[in-house]
Formats: sequence, C-alpha cells, structure tokens
Amino acid sequence: MPNIRIFSDDAGEYTRLLEGAGLPAAVLMPAGQSLSECEIAFGEPYLVATSLSQLASLRWVQSTWAGVNPLLDPALRRDYILTNVRGIFGGLMSEYILAYLLLHERRILARLEAQRQKRWDSTLTGTLQGKTFGLLGVGSIGAELARTAKFFGMQVRGFTRSSEDSPDVDQYYHDGALPEFAAGLDYLVSILPDTRETHKLVTASVFACLPPHALFINIGRGSALDEGALDQALRTGQLAGAVLDVFEQEPLPLEHPFWSTPNLIITSHSAGPSFPADITRLFIENYRRYTAEEPLLYQVDFEKGY
Amino acid sequence: MPNIRIFSDDAGEYTRLLEGAGLPAAVLMPAGQSLSECEIAFGEPYLVATSLSQLASLRWVQSTWAGVNPLLDPALRRDYILTNVRGIFGGLMSEYILAYLLLHERRILARLEAQRQKRWDSTLTGTLQGKTFGLLGVGSIGAELARTAKFFGMQVRGFTRSSEDSPDVDQYYHDGALPEFAAGLDYLVSILPDTRETHKLVTASVFACLPPHALFINIGRGSALDEGALDQALRTGQLAGAVLDVFEQEPLPLEHPFWSTPNLIITSHSAGPSFPADITRLFIENYRRYTAEEPLLYQVDFEKGY
Repeated sequence: MPNIRIFSDDAGEYTRLLEGAGLPAAVLMPAGQSLSECEIAFGEPYLVATSLSQLASLRWVQSTWAGVNPLLDPALRRDYILTNVRGIFGGLMSEYILAYLLLHERRILARLEAQRQKRWDSTLTGTLQGKTFGLLGVGSIGAELARTAKFFGMQVRGFTRSSEDSPDVDQYYHDGALPEFAAGLDYLVSILPDTRETHKLVTASVFACLPPHALFINIGRGSALDEGALDQALRTGQLAGAVLDVFEQEPLPLEHPFWSTPNLIITSHSAGPSFPADITRLFIENYRRYTAEEPLLYQVDFEKGY
Repeated sequence: MPNIRIFSDDAGEYTRLLEGAGLPAAVLMPAGQSLSECEIAFGEPYLVATSLSQLASLRWVQSTWAGVNPLLDPALRRDYILTNVRGIFGGLMSEYILAYLLLHERRILARLEAQRQKRWDSTLTGTLQGKTFGLLGVGSIGAELARTAKFFGMQVRGFTRSSEDSPDVDQYYHDGALPEFAAGLDYLVSILPDTRETHKLVTASVFACLPPHALFINIGRGSALDEGALDQALRTGQLAGAVLDVFEQEPLPLEHPFWSTPNLIITSHSAGPSFPADITRLFIENYRRYTAEEPLLYQVDFEKGY
C-alpha cells in the first residue's frame, strides 16, 4: 500500500479527484503526517524539491507540470523515478498560439478601440493563410503546433537537435542552420526546454534574421532567450511584437524592463494550463502501471533534462 | 470581346490584378465610358445595383461578396446571370471565430489589464476542448467552421433547413427543433444568409435556451437576429457575451444601443475579408467559363437568395 503525498497549490482539488477515482490500495497522506513514509510524490516540481531530502521512502515523483527543472539540480538526489506531463499540453498550447497570432493578424485591439470610439472600422485585416511559422524545438507539443499551423494554411519550419518526427513540419533545420531557419519567418515560436544546449539560444543575431513584421512567441522556458536582446529589438522596431509566457525569473520582477517594453505581451506562465482533471487522469494511469510493475509513462532523463 | 466594368471600392487594385492576369479578349472599360455597352459587371452588389437600370447589354454580374442582397430586390431586373463568392471565406471565417472564442476563453483582455498593472496573473484560463459549438446554417462556410471546431476538440451541432452535408457536424437539427438545438450550447454561431426564412430567427426564446455562460456570434446577416432581444439578454446577464460582425443597418448608426451594450464586441462587417487577389482568381476562372460557354461557378438563385 504505497503512501501518496500531494505537493500542490491545488492540493484540495487533487485530493478530491483522487478520492473520487477511488485508487485501490492507495493511501493519501494527510498534510501533517511524517514525510519519511511517502513513497509517491505527486505535485509541482518546485514544491516537491523543497521536501526532497525528507522523503526517505521515495520511489516515484509524478510532476503536475511538463517542466521539472527544480528537480534537475545536480546537487539533488536522483534515486527515484521522475515522470512529467506530456501529451496533454499540445492542444492547449495550440489554442494559446492561435489566440495571440489572431489577436495580431485580425487587429482585435484596434477593432476594440474603434468600438470604444463608436467608429465603424471595416478596414482589411490580415490572415494566417500563407504565413511561415518557425518552431524552435519540435517535441510532442511542437508536433501539435505544427499540425495546427498546417490546418490554418501556414508553411512550417522546425529547428531541432536531431529528430524529424513531425509529418507537419515542411522543412527541418539543425545545428548551425539557425540563421537560415529564421530568415523570412513571419512567426518564430520557441518551445525549447531549459537545458545546457538551449541556454540563450535566441539572441540578437536571431532577431536580425527575422523580417521587421515578425512576431516572436516564447512558451518554452525563459532561459532560452536573451531577454536584453529582445527588449532592444522591440524598442528599436527591429521586430513587430512579442508574446512571452515564460521568463528567466518568475514571477517577472516588478523592476524588469519588460513591463514597459513596447509591443510586448506578457502572459504569466499560463499558456499550457494544468487542468487537475487532465493531470489526475495521467497520474492514475501511471499509478496503475506502478502497482502492476509496468514501465511508467513520460519518464524524465535527469541528464538530458526532459 | 465582352466589355467588363468594375464596380468596386477597390477598383484600382482590381484593375491592376486583371490587367496583370492579361485576360484574353477582355476589355476593361474606363470609368467614363457609356454603361450601356457593359456586358459583364464585377464588383460590390450595392454598387452594381445603383447602375443596374443603365446596363443595357448586361449578361453577367460577378459579385465580389458572398452576400448579394442589394441585387435581390424583386423590383430590380433579373435578366442576367448573378454569381457570388463562395469557397474562399471558410478559412477566414474560421480564423475570426477562433480569434474571438479564444479572446474569451483564454481571458486575453484580463491578462492585458494585469500586465498594465504589472501584475503576475497566472490564474487558470478556459479552453475550447470539450465545448459544444452550435451552427445556425451549415453551407460551405459552416462546414469549414465545423471542421475547425472538431479540430479543437469541440462537439458540433448544426441547424439547417434540410441539408446534412458536413461530416464534421455531430448532430443535425431542423425546423421546430431550434430549442433542442440551442439547449446547453457553449457557443452559438449564426452564419444565416438574409432570406425570408431566416428573418429574425434568433429571438429572445433562443437566448432563453442557452446557458448563462454562452457566447453568441453573428457572421451571417444582421436580419437573422432580433437585435433588441440580444441587447436585453446581454443587459440582464442572461448571456455572457456576443460578437457581432453584421447588423440590420450597416454601418451601425451612431445612436444604436449596441455601441454601449455590455459584453458586446462589434467588428464592422470584416469577419470574412474579401482579399482582391482571391476574388480575382475566382472571377478569372468564371470569365474563362463564360467565354467557353461553360456553366459559371456559384450562380445565385434569385428566388432562394443564395
């Protein structure tokens, strides 16, 4: 009877969902009980990390997030199985990307301003059709974004370390071909995770390859972006706009220049909302596998970081 | 050598596009020349209508719009072939619907307000997944909207006079089943044309069937909506919001209550922008058919109105 401990800002909802699912033989540990008996930790990586040293019986951590960086610190123990969330964010990320591309192309804020002025504004708006969409990183989320971009009639380029798995990417680029990848993109979307290889991959020289009407969107991790370079590109008009969901430091500090950078939209790390019902479904499937001693879904390689 | 006359607010661009296409044997009539020699009229229906009585040689009108109502007045002549634009608005309308559904579900305006206040707002937003999407009218545009709704994981209902052509509509409703169709919809989208049958089809009793969190969107024609009933439903909170692209009177008069109705977004008849390059491609294909004496694409039945 493995003890399960929930480490989450939504602990109440997760408890209700797990109790409702009636996990066989599972023991949901109340908050007060000794952490040393916890065998399975289920929750946000940054919360699990703070208790990691006390979890003497720990064998498995199921993250409620895709990003598990707080648990990858080499100073922390790695003597357990770490699984994260995959496969359910693609659709939500697609909604997010579509929402902000269309906000831009369909001139929604200008239309709302016209309405406030009681002004009939039927000027032509843009369209996604025929645009070129560039993905920095093509994993399971990227493949879903590529599928969405094709659905709306866009050309899709993908920049990856090696894999070429998505059939919806029209052209792949690798290694030194970042300038060729970026040249002429209408939209550049980063879904890069936080790894050594992706650290500050998006720099001034990448923005210099984009046309001035381009949009940059970051829904991966803030560490992949040189934030000063983006601020500069937006202030000088080298880039038409940017939408950032992730930052080097979160929450974004009050004194950060991004709060007043022109043509920058900030969305507070909410592009891929973790709906507890979805995450719980994944946990329950993994719990079934755990008790049946089958391999767990979405195991993280501590070295690679994903 | 049939004379072609352009009747359009974008006459300059259409002239350039047609000259660039080098229509064989076509004569583009300059603006000053006698209308009586014009055999083919190409342009906005309301502009063609004002000259209709002078077009003694008229044999064919190609509308640049989908809606051709100004030419359907029974007092006007009908001794010519009328063709409209179809097949190219589905994708653009899908972008529009997605843009406004996501503006709502992903709480974009609330996020922008948080940013103005330098406030980190990572509260959960909604999603389109699992929502129920109801289409009033399922023609070629409706079929494309249904395909898009399915792509984003929605359930799709369709209300039509008779046809059940779209494979992406999960359930069809007809005739007296309007209340059953509307009950429980998250989103109600009207793409109804302006005909006798659709006149004020969307009334207070339809809004009464919708749940209070529902959104109503009209991208068909304004005549299909009882505008007073919508105003009332929004002011009393019976409905969460509405997005209107079309109105009984356009441009919307300055004194119209809609300019100050709460939770109403107005978009000035721009949901399906007529990009001249797209319209010209269709005209050129129809011109080829006209000179080859083949049947023209998208002929309008003056009686049915579409």
